[in-house]
Amino acid sequence: MPDFTVVIGSRQWSSWSMRPWLVLRQTGASFDEVVLQHRTAAGKAEAAALGPTGLVPLLIDRRTQVPIKIWDSLAICEYLAECYPDRGLWPSDRMARATARSISAEMHSGFRPLRMALAMDLFEHFPGAGLDEPGVAEDIARIDAIFRDCRTAFGLGGPYLFGHRTIADAMYAPVVSRFRTYEPELSEHAAEYVATMLADEGFKAWEDAARREL
Amino acid sequence: MPDFTVVIGSRQWSSWSMRPWLVLRQTGASFDEVVLQHRTAAGKAEAAALGPTGLVPLLIDRRTQVPIKIWDSLAICEYLAECYPDRGLWPSDRMARATARSISAEMHSGFRPLRMALAMDLFEHFPGAGLDEPGVAEDIARIDAIFRDCRTAFGLGGPYLFGHRTIADAMYAPVVSRFRTYEPELSEHAAEYVATMLADEGFKAWEDAARREL
Repeated sequence: MPDFTVVIGSRQWSSWSMRPWLVLRQTGASFDEVVLQHRTAAGKAEAAALGPTGLVPLLIDRRTQVPIKIWDSLAICEYLAECYPDRGLWPSDRMARATARSISAEMHSGFRPLRMALAMDLFEHFPGAGLDEPGVAEDIARIDAIFRDCRTAFGLGGPYLFGHRTIADAMYAPVVSRFRTYEPELSEHAAEYVATMLADEGFKAWEDAARREL
Repeated sequence: MPDFTVVIGSRQWSSWSMRPWLVLRQTGASFDEVVLQHRTAAGKAEAAALGPTGLVPLLIDRRTQVPIKIWDSLAICEYLAECYPDRGLWPSDRMARATARSISAEMHSGFRPLRMALAMDLFEHFPGAGLDEPGVAEDIARIDAIFRDCRTAFGLGGPYLFGHRTIADAMYAPVVSRFRTYEPELSEHAAEYVATMLADEGFKAWEDAARREL
């Protein structure tokens, strides 16, 4: 039996599921998946039977006698960072790590206008749609600044936000997909980073699996 | 100079500031405070000058040559848990800690109907107001279940969610204030826990300071 089970929603749309899945994959741990049609009544009932919130994502750690369940995307990421301290899931430098946690939490509770107006759909292309909804331009400008500032201050050792790939990249991966779909104008640093993530092997593995779900 | 500066909003209303302030206080570290009238233009301008998001709360760690800034309530809590591993900010048992992180993150990104309909106001008393707004009853039922389940499964060693006081209690402290203001019906376990938190010395210290701000 694999060490973990991850319960996720349909990959095409489930931005919250994408984040911890990318991190789980980066650990190298063995895991199996339960993919729920989480927008259907049957999918919701299944999710409610598996975890306490009835929401995806949900991680089940089967390495202990009583399996440990962790719900919520960011809690799963912190849990995995703690279980796999040698995988660099957070940056090792304290200031970089503080910043990575800040922007990850900022995404976790924020950017609601962007998340509402620019739904994630891996396979759609709607250039310009939704960009003039209230609050969207401000959200895009803030994310652009995050990408630029992290790349400039911490990204010298590699192409990701903090050089190598961390939880922060996973937290912003659905935004990268949205930027491909809706094509807002971005600064040069931000556009480069978006290109990096679109070519990332974890991102592509998620996309490939999403195609097989269609 | 104290080790930390914490930038917070008006204590009467600023639920997001209350959470990391309670945790910072629990560390025993020395800190000073900047209290912003964060709903005014001047307060917003001040916040924008201090941190990258223009939002409160913001923690500044002055112990390093270049001060480290951490924004977002949950990121501050994780940062402090890492800096003070002997203060029990997270439960030491792995399953308890996984659950504490899950419910903390659930609060961080969720319960929007409750947060919108039942605004935190430490000094108001509106029994019944807002309780029939859409989604509020579901949020209250879920929080009641969280209180009950944590107390039952992990709370044997003391009166808090995980026995002793942790970040999870701080994350739910503003909800406790809301429950006092709006008085929803609660299960016995949940009502007991609410009484515990209303008598908590950190909670009362926040209230006392809020009174001095009036």
